[in-house]
Amino acid sequence: MMRIIEKVTEMQKLMDSLKCRGKTIGLVPTMGALHEGHLYLVKYAVRESEVVVVSIFVNPLQFGQDEDYKKYPRTLNNDSSLCEKEKVDVLFCPSVQELYPVKPLTYIDMMGLTDKLCGKSRAGHFRGVCTVVGKLFNIIKPHNAYFGQKDYQQFIVIKQMVDDLNFNVKLKMCPIVREKDGLALSSRNRYLSPAERKQALCLKEALDKAKYLIRNRKEKKASNVINEMKKVIERQPFSRIDYIEVCDSETLEKITLIKGKALVALAVFIGKTRLIDNDVIS
Amino acid sequence: MMRIIEKVTEMQKLMDSLKCRGKTIGLVPTMGALHEGHLYLVKYAVRESEVVVVSIFVNPLQFGQDEDYKKYPRTLNNDSSLCEKEKVDVLFCPSVQELYPVKPLTYIDMMGLTDKLCGKSRAGHFRGVCTVVGKLFNIIKPHNAYFGQKDYQQFIVIKQMVDDLNFNVKLKMCPIVREKDGLALSSRNRYLSPAERKQALCLKEALDKAKYLIRNRKEKKASNVINEMKKVIERQPFSRIDYIEVCDSETLEKITLIKGKALVALAVFIGKTRLIDNDVIS
Repeated sequence: MMRIIEKVTEMQKLMDSLKCRGKTIGLVPTMGALHEGHLYLVKYAVRESEVVVVSIFVNPLQFGQDEDYKKYPRTLNNDSSLCEKEKVDVLFCPSVQELYPVKPLTYIDMMGLTDKLCGKSRAGHFRGVCTVVGKLFNIIKPHNAYFGQKDYQQFIVIKQMVDDLNFNVKLKMCPIVREKDGLALSSRNRYLSPAERKQALCLKEALDKAKYLIRNRKEKKASNVINEMKKVIERQPFSRIDYIEVCDSETLEKITLIKGKALVALAVFIGKTRLIDNDVIS
Repeated sequence: MMRIIEKVTEMQKLMDSLKCRGKTIGLVPTMGALHEGHLYLVKYAVRESEVVVVSIFVNPLQFGQDEDYKKYPRTLNNDSSLCEKEKVDVLFCPSVQELYPVKPLTYIDMMGLTDKLCGKSRAGHFRGVCTVVGKLFNIIKPHNAYFGQKDYQQFIVIKQMVDDLNFNVKLKMCPIVREKDGLALSSRNRYLSPAERKQALCLKEALDKAKYLIRNRKEKKASNVINEMKKVIERQPFSRIDYIEVCDSETLEKITLIKGKALVALAVFIGKTRLIDNDVIS
């Protein structure tokens, strides 16, 4: 039977007692609205960790003022049955009041990594992410934590935080899960109208173009790759590019000349919906 | 026998195993150069906690560029014997290289509380404090942590951090320990020349003046209290006031009209040495 826990202190007690019984604890932190991408993380966690915790919390701190915090999909009942089916042990779903009983003053933030890529257009986003993930790590103290490659920058940022602040947790990155036609799974895909849904394919098409250029055509100039990707995106009337970048896959610094491994990442508005995707190409 | 540990992973393992054996762990975080003020914290910890850890780490992150990081007293051998005498169980004394193996990018910081009092003249100081204390909490995971009232603002800031980030630790504040003549103990007192040492008494004298005015003369106007304190300090030729403030003892907001409890806090340079002291007066 899956336990559903809403209280921080109850969670802390349970986790401490499980750890002392020698159980390996795996955490899959999510904002709910679970899809196959999340479930891939859960399956991975279930294979590796003896006790699997899924947290569901739509974290207000990581949304900008004009972003979709209010309309972000909340589907707790459905999420809960999906988790139960996957043999999750504990579903941790605190209220906003429970995680932020008073207006928080403290934050965890980072120099360098957080002002690139998504950080540029989403000021304060990674500060919110680091802060809430730090809180979850303190509450759950997992041995392992699982994140998806779709939020590639998020993974790099959290890895840096874990190393810098001595959180005793191993991070695992799981590959991007896609619809059959290639669209990366995202809770935000449900915002798309049928017409937008079709145009949203351009992100993956642009990444495929980049891969073709880098691998098959031996293109070395990042600017050429980016220009070709732009053309693919701009063919779609509802699209608006937020960024397309080729960067170092660890430091996230922009690359001008591609040699070895490169992260190709992009964020594109399709209508009002901001989608992201990426590929590490070598 | 006291154990001396320098490595983060060794510390984490030992602490996890002690916690699982049901031991209550108390942490006294210090920068070394231990004096009776620290030892008061240690004695308090020994009374309350089954396993007492003293950490010694001169944290570069919390010193400003023009501050005394390099010349800060380092007296590890003596500190170690003092701890052993007090029946400390574990001395954790990592190197800078061990706590910051690469240039750290992540920091823990705070809005509001950290830009007041000492935060005003020591930009980045509390960011450094929060970051290193967060690291120590992650490494040691103590049940209790002990801090001195002399660093009153530090206590309030760390308490806010613990609450906001769900660190599962109880904080204890121990009273200021003073020399017989009233000077608050501080590792920095050893910087003082004999003449400066005498003049350094003016901090405590100013606090006594404030207490007299508030308690006996029923003075309500903070500005009057501050002015009288200034006179006491300015009588000493080597003194230079950094700040004298009367504030709310929880929010650290300046108070103009004193009613109930008030924190009176000051920082004064005596020669080149910056000293702080405070009193909560009601």
